[in-house]
Amino acid sequence: MENGNFITLTTDFGLTDPYVAEIKGVIFQRNPTAQIIDLTHAIAPQDIMGGALTIYSSYQYFPLGTVHLIVVDPGVGSDRALLAARGDNYTFVAPDNGILSLFLKNNLLQSIHRIKNKSLFRQRISSTFHGRDIMGPVAAELAQGLNLKEVGPVVDPRSCVCLNCSSSSWKDGVLCGKVIHIDHFGNIRTSITRDDLGFDPLLSFEHLEIKGQVINVLSSCYSQHPPGEILALIDSGGFVEIAVCQGNAAVILAVHPGDPVRMHLKLGSSGKRVPSSM
Amino acid sequence: MENGNFITLTTDFGLTDPYVAEIKGVIFQRNPTAQIIDLTHAIAPQDIMGGALTIYSSYQYFPLGTVHLIVVDPGVGSDRALLAARGDNYTFVAPDNGILSLFLKNNLLQSIHRIKNKSLFRQRISSTFHGRDIMGPVAAELAQGLNLKEVGPVVDPRSCVCLNCSSSSWKDGVLCGKVIHIDHFGNIRTSITRDDLGFDPLLSFEHLEIKGQVINVLSSCYSQHPPGEILALIDSGGFVEIAVCQGNAAVILAVHPGDPVRMHLKLGSSGKRVPSSM
Amino acid sequence: MENGNFITLTTDFGLTDPYVAEIKGVIFQRNPTAQIIDLTHAIAPQDIMGGALTIYSSYQYFPLGTVHLIVVDPGVGSDRALLAARGDNYTFVAPDNGILSLFLKNNLLQSIHRIKNKSLFRQRISSTFHGRDIMGPVAAELAQGLNLKEVGPVVDPRSCVCLNCSSSSWKDGVLCGKVIHIDHFGNIRTSITRDDLGFDPLLSFEHLEIKGQVINVLSSCYSQHPPGEILALIDSGGFVEIAVCQGNAAVILAVHPGDPVRMHLKLGSSGKRVPSSM
Repeated sequence: MENGNFITLTTDFGLTDPYVAEIKGVIFQRNPTAQIIDLTHAIAPQDIMGGALTIYSSYQYFPLGTVHLIVVDPGVGSDRALLAARGDNYTFVAPDNGILSLFLKNNLLQSIHRIKNKSLFRQRISSTFHGRDIMGPVAAELAQGLNLKEVGPVVDPRSCVCLNCSSSSWKDGVLCGKVIHIDHFGNIRTSITRDDLGFDPLLSFEHLEIKGQVINVLSSCYSQHPPGEILALIDSGGFVEIAVCQGNAAVILAVHPGDPVRMHLKLGSSGKRVPSSM
Repeated sequence: MENGNFITLTTDFGLTDPYVAEIKGVIFQRNPTAQIIDLTHAIAPQDIMGGALTIYSSYQYFPLGTVHLIVVDPGVGSDRALLAARGDNYTFVAPDNGILSLFLKNNLLQSIHRIKNKSLFRQRISSTFHGRDIMGPVAAELAQGLNLKEVGPVVDPRSCVCLNCSSSSWKDGVLCGKVIHIDHFGNIRTSITRDDLGFDPLLSFEHLEIKGQVINVLSSCYSQHPPGEILALIDSGGFVEIAVCQGNAAVILAVHPGDPVRMHLKLGSSGKRVPSSM
Repeated sequence: MENGNFITLTTDFGLTDPYVAEIKGVIFQRNPTAQIIDLTHAIAPQDIMGGALTIYSSYQYFPLGTVHLIVVDPGVGSDRALLAARGDNYTFVAPDNGILSLFLKNNLLQSIHRIKNKSLFRQRISSTFHGRDIMGPVAAELAQGLNLKEVGPVVDPRSCVCLNCSSSSWKDGVLCGKVIHIDHFGNIRTSITRDDLGFDPLLSFEHLEIKGQVINVLSSCYSQHPPGEILALIDSGGFVEIAVCQGNAAVILAVHPGDPVRMHLKLGSSGKRVPSSM
């Protein structure tokens, strides 16, 4: 296939059970030459918004045509729909539970189909593991060239579940965001993006407040600070991040996901007054 | 090869050390086109029974002909045998320490050979890592077509180590089982299987007791309950599972592996009076 | 390619974030047939010495020609150099921060180049993730045959950062080393190697002291001891290891990385009086 035969997996399964392996096994049963990449299996259990943010900030780092299979599916076994969608040069297979919200909100999905074609499923369908029994096999077939319309009928994007993701807003000249992710290093990703800061983020940044701490400069890298110093920068995903040079910022500042962050821009800066739809 | 060139790894190595990678590296040294799938590396250290349950409930989700390499090997370096066995369309490479008990008990292994052919081993054999130095290379060769009898002499299945796995039994009309696994979500897998409940599990189920909690219905999926509610269902492996909708059942019920569970079936139900040999 | 197309990844990224997947994705964008092996992602954050020990003790277990990409990079975004080096039949891509110290010290790198050729990089370079934006793409190209000199100018090995790794020394006839790693099982790897013990380690070993505990024999495998017994042996990497049969030695002995260990050899033994340059 021109586009390769790549499938990524994003789940809330963790790495201790054989669930991830079982999905890979059924993919290989249908598509023995697939190349499967674990995007992450550490989405918090049932955390649809966390999964939505993760896939949206990472999907473009893979070869064009990659099928992104996302299994965060608390509604498994109910009548929630399963979707296969295409847009922006990638294909997505996921439950219709809001996990594709950021793609929907930004009008990135050119075609969305409801997975209905039972001939693609495993013969025996459990009621608790549609990632293995339905979505995995469908992703396997799409990655090796199955036409999207073969999976089931077209769905109107406006009928799909779309969560409210607007997590930053302007109040009295201050951009109010929140913490959306703490990474393995303790780096604190906020909902404020590079685009919120306008053409020249380093110039327009005035200061930032988090947990009573004020940070007065936007840095360009960790190592321009001495170890232990608290800093802010634009992270590798384009988000404003608070970090501690060679330390764990989340522990040091006692910050958790959802905590508020307030950013002040310089007067007259080119910062957009409408936060980016993240 | 007709059957592909798949190898799965099941170990108690965890994911922090380079041990798993070293096995993969030596496999690729012999078999550069192998496709290796991590089944799990989270078997508890030296937990042979846990490994036995895991491989038995997952092995069939992989392409026919897959070689399952299982390295839970507390006897490494002693004179315990290493086995290569074939049965039910799959190949298994593992120590002779009971980890294949469920295959032995259910007579699934058509041929078992003791690994003796030193020309297959790595040149330098450590005394603590036969997964890398012996079993990995043998799995690599079997996956690309080596005849099973090349690894060493035939072994009588009756001479292989077989652990006592019968973990459910009938007492006074009650099926007494136990907890065999807690998964990443806190879902509680019991030793009672779908088959123990007869032809129509939802109908024959009367009630189930665990840790003083009584569950009066067998559900068909998590999401037919409100968040926080305790429920029982047949899980994706065919086992009776106790779960909490969008919650962690093991934490909420303070349940641990080995804890007893008692299931009552309706009088006249078709439930087998001999628990399945799990 | 004759040498295959293998890339290993060694990082301090952990497994919860999508960082590792993003590196793999950009590798596959350049090199769709690469075979990528996770060596480990559990190097402690910013632990350059830990990464140096890990890659040095594992690199030879992979096919000849494998590209080892090592991303432990606290200086990311600063002017620290990035290197591509070849030696001992393998290729290494890593920051110039000491992570290749053991290869430098043992004169194993035949050619070292500084990564400068921007046409190999991703178009947009973040200041916090050169593993994805620079080193990953370079590793991808080297694995499929790019000539090393295409990445940038030659570097003199003597100008590369080389950490002091000599962690064992003779004092008053005693070999003084330290704990360099605790593995998943709680096994304690020390800086003392098989070579330090001379031609016949089992014979030359007299006794070993760690945390007030004295071990009087060097064993050849775990299972020659009853469960719970403390023992010492040569581990699968060639290091002297303290273990507890079917138990967690680090917990039982309350040992941590860096703790001292003292080994006495028999008088007249062939043990080298110059500890191996590990």
